[in-house]
Amino acid sequence: MTTSNTASGDVDPAVGEELARLRDSIDNIDAAVVHMLAERFKATQQVGHLKAEHRLPPADPAREARQIARLRSLAESAKLDPAFAEKFLNFIIAEVIRHHESIAEDTGNSTPPAADRPPLDGTRE
Amino acid sequence: MTTSNTASGDVDPAVGEELARLRDSIDNIDAAVVHMLAERFKATQQVGHLKAEHRLPPADPAREARQIARLRSLAESAKLDPAFAEKFLNFIIAEVIRHHESIAEDTGNSTPPAADRPPLDGTRE
Repeated sequence: MTTSNTASGDVDPAVGEELARLRDSIDNIDAAVVHMLAERFKATQQVGHLKAEHRLPPADPAREARQIARLRSLAESAKLDPAFAEKFLNFIIAEVIRHHESIAEDTGNSTPPAADRPPLDGTRE
Repeated sequence: MTTSNTASGDVDPAVGEELARLRDSIDNIDAAVVHMLAERFKATQQVGHLKAEHRLPPADPAREARQIARLRSLAESAKLDPAFAEKFLNFIIAEVIRHHESIAEDTGNSTPPAADRPPLDGTRE
């Protein structure tokens, strides 16, 4: 199901059709991304459990620096704004942190002292 | 290229391997998502041009309500938090608004009066 079916309103039919075509593509891409993100969170949930069980530090600054550099470079070759790609990674990671905190609580590991915790803009996978 | 090669440090090798395996999957998913988002912005740039050329209103609340409802439903079936899916769409749309504003400026259409403009949390494709 796409969501563009009533998009054309009273605009020029050719323009309405072109708009509907583009919106169908946007809807297809959004569905793909939602499913990729569902997979990503499955993986980060597993990482969270692994780290909590083995009492590994939640943040790995070297890994995070590599992730950012890699995503910026991939974005550039895909003609996506690298700054946006970095912002996007931070947005996702903020959600991952929320998940990992709840996993650590469930596993019974106490929250590490504030000084050891990553900043809220997020750096855990 | 993935970014997990130096992830294991001095942890139990089996745990390090499992962590590296999960991180490779996360990196693959991130690459896929970055490329999907590059495609999405190509489509929304075209929408922006179409709307600017034909002086169509930047926001379409009915379309946006359908997009949100659809993404929440897709998220649920993919076992992704629907609230997160909605937040994600708003995050993307905020960037689209930034693009559309710059397209409208380039096309020479003046910014519509404040009352006609969508809120900054974003509702344009």
